[in-house]
Amino acid sequence: MRLTMMSDYALRVLLFAAAHPERLVTIDETQETFGMSRGHLMKIVGVLAGAGILRSQRGRAGGFTLGRSPAEIRLGDVLRMTEPDFEMVECFSPASACNIAPVCRLPVIVSEALGAFMAVMDRHSLAELLIRPQDFGAVAPRHSERPLP
Amino acid sequence: MRLTMMSDYALRVLLFAAAHPERLVTIDETQETFGMSRGHLMKIVGVLAGAGILRSQRGRAGGFTLGRSPAEIRLGDVLRMTEPDFEMVECFSPASACNIAPVCRLPVIVSEALGAFMAVMDRHSLAELLIRPQDFGAVAPRHSERPLP
Repeated sequence: MRLTMMSDYALRVLLFAAAHPERLVTIDETQETFGMSRGHLMKIVGVLAGAGILRSQRGRAGGFTLGRSPAEIRLGDVLRMTEPDFEMVECFSPASACNIAPVCRLPVIVSEALGAFMAVMDRHSLAELLIRPQDFGAVAPRHSERPLP
Repeated sequence: MRLTMMSDYALRVLLFAAAHPERLVTIDETQETFGMSRGHLMKIVGVLAGAGILRSQRGRAGGFTLGRSPAEIRLGDVLRMTEPDFEMVECFSPASACNIAPVCRLPVIVSEALGAFMAVMDRHSLAELLIRPQDFGAVAPRHSERPLP
């Protein structure tokens, strides 16, 4: 049982943006900081920006910053964006091939447990996770300080 | 976020054994019922038998049956046997490559949420999931009725 890589990376991206509230952070420096694939990173930033959790600006002087204050970003809401289906067991899918799916009560119990998991995540916000810029290791931004859009 | 295939299959195997309390069920009929790989099935039965949740008997007339009453088999305990690591995020692993792992509080929060998930699973037992033999579809046992070991 584990969160998807998307969730893991999304939380790192948010922490990195939160640690630099005075400027846009770039895809390049985020990629260098965490060693994540550029493709995954672009996708994550796109998803979070689409939901308003990040604000992004395209172009050479572009980058992204938080779209809300850290206290307003519930961890549960981040997971709802980055966990593709929450299909905890195969029978959560309409395409389930399990032959006892019509009578099995397991999905009810697993849904209850998942609800308890998400209730905890919803009680916590990004504000509780904030760390300092120097905690990410020494990463020089590609562009010098840049005003917010 | 999802349970491993091992957990999913382990629960199906237990339900199948529980539906036939009067006899040993075989690997063959379990495989035919659920269409799972024989290798995975052998591994799951081995793990559950090792923990006493199943009793198994080797040989041509062999098979397996529940080693405890369904009410004594907590779903959380099954997951603890079949979820290899509960590494919800990469940083749960000692081999984590995440560069903010030393300062990040995410594992504390995710562990709390995982605890809430498992607390729900521990409140439920196999007894709540029991279904009838005919709910598995028509599967003819390879051997006729066979006494318990």
